[in-house]
Amino acid sequence: MEIAFIMFEDYETLDVFGPAEIFGRLTDQYTLKFYSLEGGVITNRHRVPIMTEKLDTMRNNPEIILVPGGMGTRKEINNSRLLHKIKELAQESEYVLSVCTGSALLAKTGLLDGKEATSNKRAFSWVSSQGIKVDWDKKARWKIDGKYYTSSGVSAGMDMAFGFLADRHGIDFARKIAREIEYNWIEDKDNDDFVAE
Amino acid sequence: MEIAFIMFEDYETLDVFGPAEIFGRLTDQYTLKFYSLEGGVITNRHRVPIMTEKLDTMRNNPEIILVPGGMGTRKEINNSRLLHKIKELAQESEYVLSVCTGSALLAKTGLLDGKEATSNKRAFSWVSSQGIKVDWDKKARWKIDGKYYTSSGVSAGMDMAFGFLADRHGIDFARKIAREIEYNWIEDKDNDDFVAE
Repeated sequence: MEIAFIMFEDYETLDVFGPAEIFGRLTDQYTLKFYSLEGGVITNRHRVPIMTEKLDTMRNNPEIILVPGGMGTRKEINNSRLLHKIKELAQESEYVLSVCTGSALLAKTGLLDGKEATSNKRAFSWVSSQGIKVDWDKKARWKIDGKYYTSSGVSAGMDMAFGFLADRHGIDFARKIAREIEYNWIEDKDNDDFVAE
Repeated sequence: MEIAFIMFEDYETLDVFGPAEIFGRLTDQYTLKFYSLEGGVITNRHRVPIMTEKLDTMRNNPEIILVPGGMGTRKEINNSRLLHKIKELAQESEYVLSVCTGSALLAKTGLLDGKEATSNKRAFSWVSSQGIKVDWDKKARWKIDGKYYTSSGVSAGMDMAFGFLADRHGIDFARKIAREIEYNWIEDKDNDDFVAE
């Protein structure tokens, strides 16, 4: 399965590279690709420069797309070209994952309307205002509704990635990968230590 | 303070971008730079392509260097040019951090001789064989000896980064940053759930 990471300026570092570490280990099952509207180097306020391919040059529809969060979402929420592309890819893919405020971009496309979702607990009112028909959960570490996986803030994306692996390959498999990276996986998606007010 | 990440082919994704997320948030105090011997795009088996600058073009000595691990260390352990550069930079910097098998590269330079250090618990015998005069700790999540901070495997690098922040700025500050990224920081450096046999 190909996982397409949808990159934009001022993405949140760990939103991308936490899941990238986890899926990236399984090279026989998941292939990681990084895309942006214009291609080339995409960076952020952490000064982490990642090389991306141009979205329009994508040859095959990826089975999975992942939309990260970050302060850049505040700008991209008004980028109709990016939102259109996300919507198009999301509709065609088997699974759609978002981390942190990435769910604001998904919500803005309307694809989450009537669905359960979550987001960063510290940006919850802004995110939820981007999709008033979404059933937002303030308590979840991550949320699943059909093919949509949305996670809470930053490091919750890693817990969700393990949850995704557990749903596809069984919990023992997910635990094994977590042990390999010496990560204390938070397995309970419904209860987060970090709750929105 | 400038943090120079010493990159090489087939680095471990999260070894780099876990600490990058944490230090990167503190843009007023830490500036992240990514270097490699030849500069340009460095990638890994996870297919995460990061743009780097050439080590020889470095103008100022960084206050902090970070050496990640990954399967690439198996090759770089014989790269005398890289080891020489790491040794030179480590001697001149205020702090030296390594994640996972990055401590094998540090150990090979001799700089850890007589010092306490740790590493990935699943690669412990290989790593420790690279520095037989190092006082290796099989139990620590991360280890501090003078200016050297060495962490256990992959995600332990994040716990160490928070520990580093706690040592410099106080534990409340470190906890605040951990909350910001909704991360359950493992605060106890001496006890890891993952122990080498």
